[in-house]
Amino acid sequence: MTGLNVIKVGGKIVEDPSALGNLISSFVAMKGLKILVHGGGRTATDLASRLGIESRMVNGRRITDAATLKLVTMVYAGLINKDIVARLQAAGVDSTGLTGADMNCILSRKRPVTDVDYGYVGDVEKVDSDVFSKLLSSGIIPVIAPLTHDGKGSLLNTNADTIASEVAVSLSSCFDVTLTFCFEKKGVLARPEDDDSVIPVIDKQAFVKYKAYGTIRGGMIPKLENAFAALEAGVSRVVITEAGELGRNNGTVVKL
Amino acid sequence: MTGLNVIKVGGKIVEDPSALGNLISSFVAMKGLKILVHGGGRTATDLASRLGIESRMVNGRRITDAATLKLVTMVYAGLINKDIVARLQAAGVDSTGLTGADMNCILSRKRPVTDVDYGYVGDVEKVDSDVFSKLLSSGIIPVIAPLTHDGKGSLLNTNADTIASEVAVSLSSCFDVTLTFCFEKKGVLARPEDDDSVIPVIDKQAFVKYKAYGTIRGGMIPKLENAFAALEAGVSRVVITEAGELGRNNGTVVKL
Repeated sequence: MTGLNVIKVGGKIVEDPSALGNLISSFVAMKGLKILVHGGGRTATDLASRLGIESRMVNGRRITDAATLKLVTMVYAGLINKDIVARLQAAGVDSTGLTGADMNCILSRKRPVTDVDYGYVGDVEKVDSDVFSKLLSSGIIPVIAPLTHDGKGSLLNTNADTIASEVAVSLSSCFDVTLTFCFEKKGVLARPEDDDSVIPVIDKQAFVKYKAYGTIRGGMIPKLENAFAALEAGVSRVVITEAGELGRNNGTVVKL
Repeated sequence: MTGLNVIKVGGKIVEDPSALGNLISSFVAMKGLKILVHGGGRTATDLASRLGIESRMVNGRRITDAATLKLVTMVYAGLINKDIVARLQAAGVDSTGLTGADMNCILSRKRPVTDVDYGYVGDVEKVDSDVFSKLLSSGIIPVIAPLTHDGKGSLLNTNADTIASEVAVSLSSCFDVTLTFCFEKKGVLARPEDDDSVIPVIDKQAFVKYKAYGTIRGGMIPKLENAFAALEAGVSRVVITEAGELGRNNGTVVKL
């Protein structure tokens, strides 16, 4: 099967002009088919504070009330997404920005209220892999903002890691998919204070152990849970690495 | 040639939930191929004021400094564009939001500084009509935000009427194009205070006369100048009407 790289980049990268420049260079240099999924939570939090909108997080997830949904739509689908697309075009890489509403590519369902009401947050129901296949075969790189839609007229805020995983899984029936999560560290660290203590390989058993020890915590837990779910659902490889290391086979490889 | 409707809707419509609902209904009901171009200046002005960014207008055009470019990118390409796309999807109309950077569909050049420095404002250089033809032939309605790009990594703020005209003109070699400008009035009015005083037809001679009398003034002048330029460049019909009257052959018809 043809190879396909699905790359997810976190907030700190896309929101720092210099880090973003490095990401664009390394992304452009990657050969073959590729899809970029980006976050942008820090800019959203900053803009929220300038607008006097309270940012509330539970378990690392943003509570998305109506005002926050507007805010993240502006920041994710507007500011960050279009900046990346314009930069890719300048580098000669044809691309198009997408939310899940565009071409109906990612449909989701508003998360049911249990002990927490996350508000306008969507759990992915269906990725239309044809949309992505057709764009890729036309030479157009999809750049996906972390927003989906419910098919009833509302956008829904959706975790970028989840979107990257779901897109990777849906395309794994047609492509040999490598899913890479880029962030500001070189990989998953054994000692958070030591940037060079990258764990080269993590399997499920090691994950359980690291989690119990507290070595792996916070936002890394859902990231790795996503990684394992993606592998179980057909993705060939999951890599967690630094944006500047894209395509260099460094970082942490996650395997079942 | 196959018919194609290029519809431009102004700020007051897309920013008022009830007017937007009417627009979506009448747009969805239109048969045949169609493209939607939207504005959104009022929301941008409102958000600018909440963020303490000064909105400066010269001759009805926004001066776009770096902070304002970010702002309009958020509002036009994010908030308004994605709201429209999500609503169209809910109405069963497949669509995708675009700026000029997406799929490199509208390239522009930063306006040279003369007596006024408009800042990050783009004058359209090239519309890639293939991008729009391909989307239309795939059953996808393009929804265009009033932003273009310079091909060097920067988005540029571009008047939505101009974008609608340029897109209509570029597609007029392959389609029989009707270009419709929707706004909050029933058409061009002979007496601004009388909403029913719609001028049914305006030709160039009448335009010069109305302008001299001051009957036509302000934002309507560039709108009509755009209309005449579009007709001269190959567009079949230009109509100026109310959003709710879309497709009903009311309003003002502009002809050479």
